[in-house]
Amino acid sequence: LVLLMPTSLILYELAGADPNLRFSPHCWKTRMALAHKGLEAERRPWRFTEKEDIAFSGQGLVPVLVEDDEAVSDSWRIAEHLERRYPDAPSLFGDESGQAVSRFINSWADSVLVPAISRVILLDIHGVIHEKDRDYFRSSREQRYGMRLEDVVSDRAARLADLGRALAPLRTTLRQQSFIAGERPLYADYCAFGPFMWARCASTTELLAADDPVFTWRERLLDAFEGLARSAPTTQAA
Amino acid sequence: LVLLMPTSLILYELAGADPNLRFSPHCWKTRMALAHKGLEAERRPWRFTEKEDIAFSGQGLVPVLVEDDEAVSDSWRIAEHLERRYPDAPSLFGDESGQAVSRFINSWADSVLVPAISRVILLDIHGVIHEKDRDYFRSSREQRYGMRLEDVVSDRAARLADLGRALAPLRTTLRQQSFIAGERPLYADYCAFGPFMWARCASTTELLAADDPVFTWRERLLDAFEGLARSAPTTQAA
Repeated sequence: LVLLMPTSLILYELAGADPNLRFSPHCWKTRMALAHKGLEAERRPWRFTEKEDIAFSGQGLVPVLVEDDEAVSDSWRIAEHLERRYPDAPSLFGDESGQAVSRFINSWADSVLVPAISRVILLDIHGVIHEKDRDYFRSSREQRYGMRLEDVVSDRAARLADLGRALAPLRTTLRQQSFIAGERPLYADYCAFGPFMWARCASTTELLAADDPVFTWRERLLDAFEGLARSAPTTQAA
Repeated sequence: LVLLMPTSLILYELAGADPNLRFSPHCWKTRMALAHKGLEAERRPWRFTEKEDIAFSGQGLVPVLVEDDEAVSDSWRIAEHLERRYPDAPSLFGDESGQAVSRFINSWADSVLVPAISRVILLDIHGVIHEKDRDYFRSSREQRYGMRLEDVVSDRAARLADLGRALAPLRTTLRQQSFIAGERPLYADYCAFGPFMWARCASTTELLAADDPVFTWRERLLDAFEGLARSAPTTQAA
């Protein structure tokens, strides 16, 4: 593990009522990217409704990475920033075309995987967030789905089956190779892993069968960087 | 365009009743890969039921590429073969991790894009294939879908809407860059383009709106290699 020491690196992460509970899928992409680059950041807890605390970034979502005087938001742009800023640390993308193709994986994670997992865990998320965030969370999500949170997740077995089908391209890939990027994980892997950390930290529902190649891949990434993801706090709610 | 001249390169391609109609999505992946490498092959028409003609390859599907005395089947394995055999021609994958990540795109094309397009064009395919293939095609596909071909494609508007949703990760990617692989196409692009050539050659149904970034990307690939794909024969059936 190469440890570089920048002047100052701060990561704003979504936190639950318990400030140590950090479950955002996008923040997890960034945490894995930082570890891949051998970087450590001061990780500041942030709640959905604390918009003013990250207003300096020009927008209202996390992750926000602050490096010296520069703020970078959006997990994809943070990964691009890290790749450019730390060219001598292990690459997140391989070559330039690898970076472009990885964007497809990120788009798939955000447009397919996050929605499919949210249909299982959305009410669990509501249960772990800070009380002051709950009205915002419920109203914004119920507007997005056009139904109550309770109804979004009402048929868990059917939603888990939907998720299983949505994972087909990932599963087929991981039958042939250990990681999306081959023998070692790159940012493409962290893009798809982030949503699984979201579920692991905020929900007690198991999304995968133990004989699923996606399960084995997730295990490998839980173990990466000396168990960084495996040792992260999770909810204890039953 | 670098033209290499191997001793002998033969590509078995699925053909319709018209032997010049070559519509297989997987054969199109291989045609684009050959063009990318600057290679020309003798393209032999093959029909679904001519299993004995490719029995030498140890299996019963096309594409089959025969190079000197070696037969390679499966479009992905053919791409790997070409990359290994012609390392000095333009790379299909970028670096090694790019090859691994491209496998995800191929898996997505096969498990999401091909099924979504087939729900629109499956009956059109039946209309262009050789008469001797029709019983085989109908019975194998009706078994796969558990319904008659006519019912697979019965609600075209709904199936086109499903396809539009399935394209979300590709669309999001192509809002940011010209090709899946960035500024220039690589095999990842051909994996997703093959299924669109399948529809173009065998059906008159337009799958995409003109303002869809996927449409523009498809136009760029139709123009690639001096219009190789654009000039390919298509069905004239109304």
